[in-house]
This record gives sequence, structure tokens and C-alpha cells, in this order.
Amino acid sequence: MDAARVLIGGEWREANFKKTFQAQNPATGETLSHAFPVSEWADCEAAVHAADEAAEQLRSVAPERIAAFLEAYARNIESSADQIVRTAHEETGLPITPRLKDVELPRTVNQLRQAAAAAREGSWARATLDTEKNIRSCFEPIGPVVVFGPNNFPFAFNGVSGGDFAAAIAAGNPVIAKAHPLHPETSRLLAEEARKAVVETGLPAATVQMIYHLANEDGLKLVGHPGVGVVAFTGSRAAGLHLKRAAEEAGKPIYLEMSSINPVVLLPGALAERPAEIAQELVDSCLAGAGQFCTSPNLILMLENPSAEELLDRIAKVFQERSPQPLLSSSGLSQMHAGVQSQVEAGATLVTGGGVAQGPGYRHENTLLRATAGQFLAAGHALQREVFGNATLAVVADVPEELQEIVGQMEGNLTGSIYSAKSGADDSLYTQLAPGLSRKVGRLLNDKMPTGVAVSPAMNHGGPYPATSHPGFTAVGIPAAMIRFAALRCYDGVRQERLPDILKDKIDNPSTWRSIDGAWVRAMERG
Amino acid sequence: MDAARVLIGGEWREANFKKTFQAQNPATGETLSHAFPVSEWADCEAAVHAADEAAEQLRSVAPERIAAFLEAYARNIESSADQIVRTAHEETGLPITPRLKDVELPRTVNQLRQAAAAAREGSWARATLDTEKNIRSCFEPIGPVVVFGPNNFPFAFNGVSGGDFAAAIAAGNPVIAKAHPLHPETSRLLAEEARKAVVETGLPAATVQMIYHLANEDGLKLVGHPGVGVVAFTGSRAAGLHLKRAAEEAGKPIYLEMSSINPVVLLPGALAERPAEIAQELVDSCLAGAGQFCTSPNLILMLENPSAEELLDRIAKVFQERSPQPLLSSSGLSQMHAGVQSQVEAGATLVTGGGVAQGPGYRHENTLLRATAGQFLAAGHALQREVFGNATLAVVADVPEELQEIVGQMEGNLTGSIYSAKSGADDSLYTQLAPGLSRKVGRLLNDKMPTGVAVSPAMNHGGPYPATSHPGFTAVGIPAAMIRFAALRCYDGVRQERLPDILKDKIDNPSTWRSIDGAWVRAMERG
Repeated sequence: MDAARVLIGGEWREANFKKTFQAQNPATGETLSHAFPVSEWADCEAAVHAADEAAEQLRSVAPERIAAFLEAYARNIESSADQIVRTAHEETGLPITPRLKDVELPRTVNQLRQAAAAAREGSWARATLDTEKNIRSCFEPIGPVVVFGPNNFPFAFNGVSGGDFAAAIAAGNPVIAKAHPLHPETSRLLAEEARKAVVETGLPAATVQMIYHLANEDGLKLVGHPGVGVVAFTGSRAAGLHLKRAAEEAGKPIYLEMSSINPVVLLPGALAERPAEIAQELVDSCLAGAGQFCTSPNLILMLENPSAEELLDRIAKVFQERSPQPLLSSSGLSQMHAGVQSQVEAGATLVTGGGVAQGPGYRHENTLLRATAGQFLAAGHALQREVFGNATLAVVADVPEELQEIVGQMEGNLTGSIYSAKSGADDSLYTQLAPGLSRKVGRLLNDKMPTGVAVSPAMNHGGPYPATSHPGFTAVGIPAAMIRFAALRCYDGVRQERLPDILKDKIDNPSTWRSIDGAWVRAMERG
Repeated sequence: MDAARVLIGGEWREANFKKTFQAQNPATGETLSHAFPVSEWADCEAAVHAADEAAEQLRSVAPERIAAFLEAYARNIESSADQIVRTAHEETGLPITPRLKDVELPRTVNQLRQAAAAAREGSWARATLDTEKNIRSCFEPIGPVVVFGPNNFPFAFNGVSGGDFAAAIAAGNPVIAKAHPLHPETSRLLAEEARKAVVETGLPAATVQMIYHLANEDGLKLVGHPGVGVVAFTGSRAAGLHLKRAAEEAGKPIYLEMSSINPVVLLPGALAERPAEIAQELVDSCLAGAGQFCTSPNLILMLENPSAEELLDRIAKVFQERSPQPLLSSSGLSQMHAGVQSQVEAGATLVTGGGVAQGPGYRHENTLLRATAGQFLAAGHALQREVFGNATLAVVADVPEELQEIVGQMEGNLTGSIYSAKSGADDSLYTQLAPGLSRKVGRLLNDKMPTGVAVSPAMNHGGPYPATSHPGFTAVGIPAAMIRFAALRCYDGVRQERLPDILKDKIDNPSTWRSIDGAWVRAMERG
């Protein structure tokens, strides 16, 4: 049996495997030719062992070299962009342009470069000095990081190239990437560019490792492995909760991004003011990536009135006109279809769509459902279950109090948006709804759709459970996202020459911000 | 049946209870007269309900008023200090002076005042502004906090007055304190001072609530209650792990400080240079509070040589001379005794002590054990089990590599100390041991015992599992400790007038540090 090799200890090694798998082109249904191994436990063990040594070696590697690696990797990806984009298109069915080539790939190399800049700057470590008591602390790398990437972003969230990867490496850790089995060849190409950059910049060989697939029980064992420092996962709630339990049972931090329906509240004044504009933004956001975004608006909340009905008509019309884009897999299609059906069973009505669409490949009709506030509230959490794909539920409430109650019953989400009139006509409704919504989400938006997560230091791509596993951390945004991959360490009475560089009285790096005796100071200011 | 009242919704209410308990004076064994209720679930439900309303109201309370409450509470404690100290002495057997009156009570009011200053300053919220993209984020109160205080610090870690309490309140949350049943009357007196301060400063009535005792199953149910935002616990590993599982199963953050043996490495040059001084510091640290400190040095690591033997002789001599102080309870005594016996069974040898001591009250002989590195390593984790009390294990290694191996096998601890020669004679040994030790602890000390945890912004009273449940957070040190009680919230495209004050372009508070477009700026600098 022949299969692609896994990247362990700096080499493409033959995997320990008994089974293989192949990806499919979801736009055609065609099975792709490469075979990839389902690794046995021995591969995990070897990767953790090598990562442990790399973690040790990385402690004496200057941040400058880690930054150089991230930048070399970004350049390498750009050099091979054509092949990488073509392969990802084949494995995911996502459009080459603008999506893969002009949006996601540039975003990915940008993340790597931002991470490089943050590693070089050093401020991410939040060095805190109490010079009078000679107590000093900072965040330091936590050890090998296992990253489970999701199916929907083959570059920007890939375990071997995405935001978690960039943040974990920039914080000084080696990464063991668990590639998503829906885009293994894309992951292989990316990992090869990473491997080359490791060699070019002389980082420890096992700084970047990658395995394609694992039996579920080995995944659970891996996240609890004593040699693993921390785990990051983006994917389904079901898989996430299994990993969460296994990691927590072993006393290990795990950061999960699991599911979100991203409510969008459209207040009547806004709908009256700019109906066409809002409809356009909404359908574009709902159908982006065939709705397979973690921030896709799965839930629209409105008050009953003619402009709400008009909006639903507009959406339905565009949903019917646009041809359905392929979903990422046949199981994604069947799960989405089951999700739509269970929303109907829970009381929602189909406005348009609802069925599996004509091929080629795995497509579902663009689907709009609606329900009354009463139906939504009566259904408990059934109408809050994320339907991953091009389906959206609109809830039309009779009175503002119903909207407030819906917000109160809402589970934790990544985002919540409120569109309100520029005239001020919706201001009192806004004041009634925003505080409650803000507490249920990681990011509150005004007059903006939630898709398109900016890589900003102020971003929070996080939120209350069950959207994520901890409401204090973001998965996007450098340097904040790096803190997940670090441990707080304190040095009490430690002699000056023995301190980590960043905690010494004088530091060489002119750009590092430190909190010294209660004031934030940039090293250059103290010379 | 008569019993003390519980503090719920701002009033001392009759508890829902079927059972009562009484505290004992552990220095005499005498049962104290007051009866306290073991609350039924209805008390928890009522407290969470009231806390939920208080959390809502606290959102519109200015930080200045929260600061005023913390300061009023500190003053009230000082006004009633005599009675509080006397009661704590009776319930814990800890000496009135210096411990309770001159150390722990001043530390406690100092913590409250530091928390007040941090609430007033506002920098704790880490406001981060991306003005170009108009994305802004900060930490905001997470909702009702349940604090489980430990047995060993009746003021400074008490659920109703200690560090967790102060940090949770300063971050803008109401607290439901679960008093420790070994010092209920002390907790009642403190809670009454808190209640008065709530009234004086006009905070929501349920900002501070307190329950004395709960059935285990109700404790587990409470930490998973949907109305609870986060849980903080300081206590035994067994109880902590039960609560951890219950909270995590409900998707709730929980911060636990569970156990630590705080290794102290005494290098040969240091022992040769200042034997008497080190012996003195060590015995004082080991016997402080009868060894019932979370940072008590339970493990001494040395290399075989005459000065190591000399040190052990000195320690043994003082251990024999000093009369054993009372432990906190009869069960604490029996657990400690069982712990010492199991260390002997695991291969350690008694140097002095080892038995239950003469009364009155619950006392154990000051106990020194020793083992070879080989014995320690062969025992797996058996010789790393915390023995909570006045017992210390010395491990004498033949060669430095053995010490390195011990450090490598060590579980997560709060602290690790290394004493080395001032002459530089130990420098190469230090370099060999410090990196490994630093990764196993939250705080690395040089030439200093770990007891006496300074309340400094740079402190880390935390560490890797199982010392705590998350290596990224500290339980001591304002403002860092406050972040545990907050959620990260982002405002994306939100209109200026709708932003929380701290995220507006211009803010009134001249003292708040914010990160604006990558630079830390104090509000006063921007006027």
C-alpha cells in the first residue's frame, strides 16, 4: 500500500498506517488520486517526542530567527501560490478567484507576517516588572502545540499555515498540525513550504510537523499526552467537545472554536432607510463560501412590518437566482440537509430552497427559513443548532420584548450584529437589545455583517461557550491570539544576569513594550 | 433548630437547612458554641438569582463606586479588627500576633485597597483600539463569581474578603462566597462588614453573598449553574478536581489552586557559604502556619556532601526544639499523619518527628524525612504528594544529573527556589537546573523561600497543572488576577456614542492605560 509521507522530525517519513484515504473534488464528486495515510499511534508518539526536543531547542532561539522563519514561509507560499491555490480549489470546490487566490492566500501570508512582526517586537509577552521588589513576570512558550484545522479554510485556518499555527510558532513553540482530511494535498504542499523555511532559517527540524489523519481514539490520546503543552481546535461542536473532555481530564489547556449562528438583528428604521443595501450585504454574507464560515449569519432577527417582509422577498429572490455553490463534502451536504429538515420539524417554515440541489458535486439549494418568535422560543435550542452551509433562518417577532427574550435565551456566539437607522429612529430599540446581545457574543457589530474577520490587534474571534471553550481568548488577532500558547512565569529575586532577556533592567530590543512599576514603557524610551 | 443566618440578596436570612455544624478550636479541641447551617440547594438557587440581578445592575455602576465599596470594606474590617482577629484565632489556632493581627489582616485590607485602586485606574481591562478599522476590545465583567475559600487563610484567601473576592468585585462582578466550614464565625463577621460597606456605598444589595456550607453534590451543581459566570477555588486537590470536572462539563471557566510541594534546591556553594542563615530561613518557612501554606517548602533538594548533612542536622535540631503548632482541624491532623506514613512506605526515612504530638488540640510533631534521589525517582509520584502541615522531605542526590532527573519528573508546582553561592561557585549547577525547574513552576526564586507571596502586579501565584488548572493566570497580584473574572468583548464598527466609556476615542479617566494602534497610551497623555 502506498501513501503520502508524514512530516515528522523534519523529514517526510513513511507513516505508520494500516488504512489510507483519498480526498474528493466536492464540485464534481470525483475521487482524487493521491492516497494519504491514517496514522497509527506510533506517528503521534514520534511527533510528540520530536516536538519535545524542538521545544527545548527553541528556548535558545532568538525571536528574530523565529520571525525570519515565518517570513520565509510566507514568501515560499507566495512562490508556490499557483499550485497551492489550484490544489485547494480541487479539494474544496472553493473558487480560485477571488476567494482562494485573492482573499484567503493573501490573508494567510499576512497573518504569518504579522506574527513575525509580533515575535520580533516582543510586546506580546506582557513583561511586567516590579523593580522595587525585584519580582518580574512574562509569558513564555508553553511547549508543543497540537493544532486541529477545520475543513472550511484550507489556508487561513489550516493547522500547518493558519492563525493558530502562526500564533503558536511566534510564541516560540513547535507545532504538530493535524491536517483536515478534506484537503490533505493542500496541507502537504503548505507543510513542504514550511519545511523548506525551517531549513532555510535553521530552526529545529521538528518545529513544524504534520499528520494527515488519526483514529478518533488516537486524537483523544494525543490531546492528553503529557508531552503536549496545549491544543487548538477549530471545527464541529461534537468533535470539539470530545477533545475538550480528553484534554481537560489530563489537566491541559485546550482552545476550541466550535459553532456559532451569528445573529443579525435588522431594526425597522434601518430596513426602511436602506433596504436594498442591507439585502445585498446579507445575501453576500450568507452565501459566502456556501455559508461555510464560522461567522456566517445563520439567524436574522426582525420585527414584523412591511419592510421585513420586503427584505425576506429580496433575499428569497437572490437565493433562488444564485446557483448553489458546492459544499465541502458529501457528509457536509447530508448534515446540512438534515439540519434544515430538523429546523422544519422544530417549527420553521421553508421560504425557499430546502432540498439537495442538482450536481455536479455536493450542492444544497440556497435555503431561507422563517419562524415566529413564539416558534423560536418554544423550540428551545433546536432552532439555535448551527446548520453549516447556505441556509439561514429569519425570525420575525411581533414586539421588541420578544426579541429581547430571544437574545436572553441565546447560547454563546462568536458574533452578533445590529443594523439600525442612521437617522436615530432605532436608538431606543438598540439600547434595549444591545446590552443583552453583547453578553452573548465575542464581537458586537454595528451595521456590518460578521463575515470577514479582520486580523487586528483589537479583534476578538472568540466568545462565550459553546462558541468557544473560554471567553477570555481570541483565535484571530496578533498579538492577542499568541497568549493562548504561553504560560505565565514569574522570577522572584532572581539575579539580573539570570533573567530572561525581556525581564532584565535594560534590554536590547528597542520596540518591546513592558509594564514597569505600573507604567507601560517602550524599551527605546529607556534606552 | 437554630443556626446562623446566611447572607443572600443583601439580608441575613434564615437558611434552608436540615443540618448544622459547629467549628472547633483546633488549639484546644473544644467545640465552639455557634451553630451554622449546611444550606440546601434552595439557598444556592436564591443566591444565584439575586447575583444575576446584581450583575445586571453593576454594569451601570461607575468603577469609582466599586472602588469606594472596597475601601469602605477595608476600613470596616480595620474598625472591627480586634473581634475578627480574636474569632479567627479561636477558630484556626493561628497566633494572634504577628500572624493574624500584624500580617494577615493588614495584607487583606491592602489587597482590598489595591483592588480599589485598580478598579479606579481602569487599565486592568486592557482596552485595545484599532482606530483605523474601528475595532475595539476590552475585558468586561463575566457575571456572578463563586469563590470557595481555603481553610488556611481566614482573611487573605477567605471567599468573602480575600484575593479572589477583591479581584472579582474590582472587575465588576457580584460574589457568592462559600465560606470555609473551619472558620464560619470569622467569615460571618467579615461578611457583615462587607454588607455594611455595600449599604454605605449604595451597591446592589446582592453584590456580596455568603453561604457557610453545602452538601458536595450541591457544590458541584452550583459551579455548573447557568447563572454563574466563573468559579475560583483554593483548597485540596481532591475537592478541586471534582469541582473542575463539574464546571468544565458545563462549559464554565474555573480557576483552581490545588496543591504544591514547592521544591527548594540548596546548592553546595550556598550551603558552604551561609549554612546558619539558610537553615534559619528554611525552618521558619517550613513551620510558618504549621506548614499549612500553599507555598510551604515540602521538598528540599541537595547534593550529597558534608554541608548538606550539617544542614539536615540543624533543621532536625530546630524541628525538635520548637513546639508543634496546632493544625487547623482533627481531619487535617489525621491526613497529615497519613501523608507522613505513606512517604515512609514509599521509601523515605524519618529524621525526626513522624508522630502525632501531645495536645491540647490537633498537633503533629515537626517532621523531617529524607530519601535518596534513587528512592525519590523509584517512588513515582508517591513522594510528590503534598503533605499539608509541618513536614518536609529532603532528597539528597549523589550527582547533579539526579537532581536534573528529579526536576524533569516533577509535577507542576506554584514555586521553585534555588539557593546558590554569592561567589559564583554554583553558577554552572544553576544553569544546569534552573531552565527545567522554571518550566515546572509558576514562580522561580533565587535565594529566597517561597512563603510570603507579595501582592505585586508582577506576582504569579499560579503554575502548571496540577498546582492550578491553567498556567496562564495568577491568583495573587492586582490587576493581573482580575482578568480571571472577565470576558473579552469586541466592538466592531460600533458607533462612538454606543461604545463602553473605556473604548471611546476620548475618555474622562486620566489614569487608564490603553493600547491604541499598537502603542500603550495613558489617557492623560491624549487629554
